[in-house]
Amino acid sequence: MTYCVGMLLDRGLVMAADTRTNAGVDNVGRFKKVHQWVKDGKSAFVLLTAGNLAVTQAVVSLLTEGTTMKGRNADQANLFAAKTMFQAARIVGRAIREVRKIDGESLGATGDAFSASFIFGGQIGKGRVRLFQIYTEGNFIEATPDTPFFQIGEHKYGKPILDRVARNDMRLGEAAKMVLLSFDSTLRSNLSVGMPIDLLLYECGSLTISRTKRIEKDDAYFSMLSSAWSGALREAFANIEPFDI
Amino acid sequence: MTYCVGMLLDRGLVMAADTRTNAGVDNVGRFKKVHQWVKDGKSAFVLLTAGNLAVTQAVVSLLTEGTTMKGRNADQANLFAAKTMFQAARIVGRAIREVRKIDGESLGATGDAFSASFIFGGQIGKGRVRLFQIYTEGNFIEATPDTPFFQIGEHKYGKPILDRVARNDMRLGEAAKMVLLSFDSTLRSNLSVGMPIDLLLYECGSLTISRTKRIEKDDAYFSMLSSAWSGALREAFANIEPFDI
Repeated sequence: MTYCVGMLLDRGLVMAADTRTNAGVDNVGRFKKVHQWVKDGKSAFVLLTAGNLAVTQAVVSLLTEGTTMKGRNADQANLFAAKTMFQAARIVGRAIREVRKIDGESLGATGDAFSASFIFGGQIGKGRVRLFQIYTEGNFIEATPDTPFFQIGEHKYGKPILDRVARNDMRLGEAAKMVLLSFDSTLRSNLSVGMPIDLLLYECGSLTISRTKRIEKDDAYFSMLSSAWSGALREAFANIEPFDI
Repeated sequence: MTYCVGMLLDRGLVMAADTRTNAGVDNVGRFKKVHQWVKDGKSAFVLLTAGNLAVTQAVVSLLTEGTTMKGRNADQANLFAAKTMFQAARIVGRAIREVRKIDGESLGATGDAFSASFIFGGQIGKGRVRLFQIYTEGNFIEATPDTPFFQIGEHKYGKPILDRVARNDMRLGEAAKMVLLSFDSTLRSNLSVGMPIDLLLYECGSLTISRTKRIEKDDAYFSMLSSAWSGALREAFANIEPFDI
């Protein structure tokens, strides 16, 4: 399993992913699921990945190779050639379909699912920051102020806090706090989601990515957050009068 | 979908279920999922049901018919003939297998799953209160102080509060409060779980069931609980310092 959250804010993006992969509980690994392509001052793209690791890594490799492509067909594969985030999201979708063309049949033959999902966000030049959830099929939806976040992987345990708190006018640091609480709930309830967490903050208009952090198990902020939240919940619970019939 | 929680306490049981059934989002119904069989002063049994409604209703009907059975085979089907809660749980398991014998093949023929799950609790005479989760297959597991609760149906959204707070030495009213908070989280995130909620409190040694309540949408306690919890969470969130990198 995996847990990834992407959040679209007026001020930018907060993107986070755990690092655990597993093929059964006895085959656990650690892989980065946050990927980025940046041309300082021109464009910045972030991709979060969940699902079959062979599929998602192939998509990432195709996109990386694409960024060096030139010539007539470059705009079909090169993120840096995209003029809008919509075009960039279509390039990611095309990469997914390309991988399916190559590996889909063999995966199908052994009964394995071609399953992968993606959260893709970024900014190009003076265009606005946009955030997409891209499906296995390569099509996608876009975040709006009504629902400014996307989750992929094990989304249920971490959704209540987002449903209650997420607003697109939050500051980046507040949104990052909320996203980490969402991870805290998920980590407690699903063993297949595991530390460390990769966190990335993108500031609107910066067209560069400088604020990233790998949050390890013993991270001071995360430990404080987790225990402060537990304490506050227990106190809040104790302060409500018991039910009586 | 459905959401049911059963909690085993030193002081008794708290059992709760929503009342929504659905076959697609355009075919929604309301059915009771809390069932009880009581012989005052002798034994009290409570069953929570989730899954295929035809299956669970058939199981309940078989158990009800069983309670009037007499003679040699009565102890195979009559809950009131059971000498221990373990025997009673096996009677429930047998009823599930009986329904599968009758309906399983036809359900399989149309590709429908024979899916049903149950939480079963109660007390017989001077025996201890016990709580079981009974599977589609008719076998079961029993709650212990390590994990004093069971959930069936849409269990994920409502699990974090139980994981944090549930202890078998809680008072009934505290446990009921916790269970209702677990429902509150679930109702917010899954449309196929719906009010009203049926809540039942069983006191150890009482061998009768007198504390039950149907909690409707406008229930004063539930509204207070829901808004007090929301307010406390928002406050707790605001009081934690934001993340910074």
